[in-house]
Amino acid sequence: MRRWNGWGEETTQMEMPAHGAAFLRERLGEGHTLPDASLDSALARVPASRLAPHPLYSIEPRDRLMHARGQSLPDWLALREGVLGQYPDAVALPESVEQIRQLLALADSADLCLIPYGGGTSVAGHINPPASLRPVLTVSLAHMGRLLDLDEQSLIATFGPGASGPQVESQLRAKGYTLGHFPQSWELSTLGGWVASRSSGQQSLRYGRIEQLFAGGTLETFAGPLEIPTFPASAAGPDLREVVLGSEGRFGIISEVKVRVSALPEDERFYGVFLPDWPRALQAIRQLVQARVPLSMLRLSNAMETQTQLALAGHPNQIAWLERYLALRGAGEGKCLLTFGVTGNRRQNALSLRQARQHLKAFGGVFTGTLLGKKWQQNRFRFPYLRENLWQAGYVVDTLETATDWCHVDGLLHAIEASLRDCLAAEGERVHVFTHLSHVYGEGSSIYTSYVFRPAADYPATLERWKALKQAASRTIVENHGTISHQHGVGKDHAPYLPREKGELAMAALHSLSRHFDPAGRLNPGTLLED
Amino acid sequence: MRRWNGWGEETTQMEMPAHGAAFLRERLGEGHTLPDASLDSALARVPASRLAPHPLYSIEPRDRLMHARGQSLPDWLALREGVLGQYPDAVALPESVEQIRQLLALADSADLCLIPYGGGTSVAGHINPPASLRPVLTVSLAHMGRLLDLDEQSLIATFGPGASGPQVESQLRAKGYTLGHFPQSWELSTLGGWVASRSSGQQSLRYGRIEQLFAGGTLETFAGPLEIPTFPASAAGPDLREVVLGSEGRFGIISEVKVRVSALPEDERFYGVFLPDWPRALQAIRQLVQARVPLSMLRLSNAMETQTQLALAGHPNQIAWLERYLALRGAGEGKCLLTFGVTGNRRQNALSLRQARQHLKAFGGVFTGTLLGKKWQQNRFRFPYLRENLWQAGYVVDTLETATDWCHVDGLLHAIEASLRDCLAAEGERVHVFTHLSHVYGEGSSIYTSYVFRPAADYPATLERWKALKQAASRTIVENHGTISHQHGVGKDHAPYLPREKGELAMAALHSLSRHFDPAGRLNPGTLLED
Repeated sequence: MRRWNGWGEETTQMEMPAHGAAFLRERLGEGHTLPDASLDSALARVPASRLAPHPLYSIEPRDRLMHARGQSLPDWLALREGVLGQYPDAVALPESVEQIRQLLALADSADLCLIPYGGGTSVAGHINPPASLRPVLTVSLAHMGRLLDLDEQSLIATFGPGASGPQVESQLRAKGYTLGHFPQSWELSTLGGWVASRSSGQQSLRYGRIEQLFAGGTLETFAGPLEIPTFPASAAGPDLREVVLGSEGRFGIISEVKVRVSALPEDERFYGVFLPDWPRALQAIRQLVQARVPLSMLRLSNAMETQTQLALAGHPNQIAWLERYLALRGAGEGKCLLTFGVTGNRRQNALSLRQARQHLKAFGGVFTGTLLGKKWQQNRFRFPYLRENLWQAGYVVDTLETATDWCHVDGLLHAIEASLRDCLAAEGERVHVFTHLSHVYGEGSSIYTSYVFRPAADYPATLERWKALKQAASRTIVENHGTISHQHGVGKDHAPYLPREKGELAMAALHSLSRHFDPAGRLNPGTLLED
Repeated sequence: MRRWNGWGEETTQMEMPAHGAAFLRERLGEGHTLPDASLDSALARVPASRLAPHPLYSIEPRDRLMHARGQSLPDWLALREGVLGQYPDAVALPESVEQIRQLLALADSADLCLIPYGGGTSVAGHINPPASLRPVLTVSLAHMGRLLDLDEQSLIATFGPGASGPQVESQLRAKGYTLGHFPQSWELSTLGGWVASRSSGQQSLRYGRIEQLFAGGTLETFAGPLEIPTFPASAAGPDLREVVLGSEGRFGIISEVKVRVSALPEDERFYGVFLPDWPRALQAIRQLVQARVPLSMLRLSNAMETQTQLALAGHPNQIAWLERYLALRGAGEGKCLLTFGVTGNRRQNALSLRQARQHLKAFGGVFTGTLLGKKWQQNRFRFPYLRENLWQAGYVVDTLETATDWCHVDGLLHAIEASLRDCLAAEGERVHVFTHLSHVYGEGSSIYTSYVFRPAADYPATLERWKALKQAASRTIVENHGTISHQHGVGKDHAPYLPREKGELAMAALHSLSRHFDPAGRLNPGTLLED
């Protein structure tokens, strides 16, 4: 069963080794926990729906509770406390495009707000109901996840928008194909959600971001269906695909998604290399990606993330041996773990590996084979479960991310880390901060920062700590050439920072598009565009 | 000196061998020419400007004549006859962003239309002045072509919008870089024009289309400047870059362009392979690109284009020997010439070549080394000059292009060719038609068709022939899953077909964006969007 107040399946547990807890204690002080609300007490708080029963939706408190929040840290805190504030008045689970259209018509006639809902994995408040005078109807696409068509010549698969990562891959793999889109939220997030929020997968280096994979489809809007035809490329004016991408439910409900798929690769391997220090590591991966060596993924942890990962991995004796070996080979204190992958045919992979190893060696890289790569592969979707364990150990973890051009990567990374590390100093609290670069481009890189801190005395005060941290980092990002999001989207949490990034004229253009597709402003108010 | 009534430099001539003329005579009958107007007689037809002299622009008849038309076939016929119909009332050559802003202000105060003008190479009527009650001011960016900044870490170059292909490459090559964007119009077309019309270069397989190269920049609009920041990627809502791309001067004047550049490659080679027949050739290249072998260009001529190219190449004895050799190796009548390139480091290029050869051999491909590749390289920007020679030999040539998913490529190609071939049958005229695929993607391919026919008795009747051909092919494209343009843009010639492709809702969205950026409708009316 899926956790009602946290990430993923209840049966999936990450272990937090004793060594890891000690590592955090040393950095942050003794952790302490806040009491978790029970499901029953949370259900008891769900107010009466403002909507009468209807065959197209449910007004059951449990359904409404389960669709009230995503997976941001404020969502987590609200769920743990059992106090959610706003709830949808009803939850619909349409099974066809026809039913989506009926829901749009119903929203118009009954004066509702609609919130399109994929896997509920937003970490930026995308699907949280606003405090609205209009009743709020959340539209979950969970019952529309089938593979509807596969064009094996053009390699285009047509899916319902609600297909989760495993549903996408299992239906494609049965026919010998893969989408190759693996965001960390892959187990729960959906294809429609990826499109709506411009998701990026861990192997974007090979397969591209969802922008490159999304070939076309249909957006059901209040002004009628917007059908995006599939073309391999086109010079026929501005690309409306790029307006659906990132629309975050503001322009319509994505009802069908056509994606570019690939034949399953012949061969795939992931490798671990330790670079001796951050400056050399940064230069090494920038030049590696700019040299266009065909790798399929690349993730570079900074020294603190490397140290943290080794501490949380358990097996302190093995780790000590590894560190002794690495130090002998020149990667001592300050070392940075690089994980990279090759995916494709064997001969190409062999050459890519050879070129990457040779390149990294020139920067002092110590190659450690596939062992750490396999570990990464095993745990590639597990990181979100870690919040549960840290919470139980008395700590709070959150992550944030951006992307910037190479000339700003180092400066922005340090500025973000500093803004978080010092943010709670007035309260005498420390923050443990570490970062990796996991999506690299010729032009620049994503920056993905994790931060761990202790809860305050109660939930509201803990939320205030988070707000201070989030604000400090978000300001630092937009004031230092970063985008407010590389892969999580805007939602409500990032919306205040978007005008600084896009400028007033662009914001006005987006508002005018929103009015065009949704004249009455019913769709997901407050997400993406502040009203 | 640049030709006033045709393509390119007067000093550049393509030779039309006797053998080639005979080849066309056999297919179309004896050619015949129409009289060319002199520059003086064309100048004498330029009417008085509706604008008073002003330091920001010229009202000289010669400047107005030279900026009145692009390079479409109707433009060519008008220039050859010396009868252009509409002329801009003035031509401005701003030298700074400040001057562009002054021109926008002037347009508002004096109630003008503005036409942004790059290299004047449009083949779809983009820059032709409309018949407008408002005076028309053409704004040429020719004096804004400098490399303004080069960020060698992020590999981003900032240019003025008027940089032509040679200006872009010479300024970058001096520092060891290339943009890698080589449309056939490269000698004359400009960076701003590429962005505005979504251009694609011959090596898009390696470097991407202009969409992938355009990192950001500024669009000066009547509602203020739209500044697109550069990020390697972003999930922060819909991408306004993709609204500037393909905007064709309707939303504003591009005043600065930031592009993603690459280090000059260590090694680059182009090869020729003959495939025995079209079905096998088509399957071979589809599978080759879907296997992601890192090639930098790929151009497959169908049997008729192959035959035509060999006939027009001259050297009939050498060609006869080549054909005898190819027939012995299994590529006889019906053979199709594939040209492909590898670009990058030597080891990677060697592997790519090996994998491509092995793959093509399985489809009966006969490898001929680099000889034909070198020929292609020599002539890669020469095809547009051929119109001059064919005209002198008594024939008219035009091209059109689209892109479609692989499952439709063969059907659409044959439908386009048939629609052209039979179009003038009622007049008893034949049309010589041939096609290549030159931009290939995992999802599908571009289709680039050339057609040659005889002029009618006079210019207006010849234009009518072209209209019939263009309409037949354009309808065929949009009714058979093709985009109305893969690389030439929409302009005025394709605008009537755009609603069929994008749908009414999307067209209304584009109109609403146009009103947003240009409330009085001054910018390039009739291009992209029919009014």
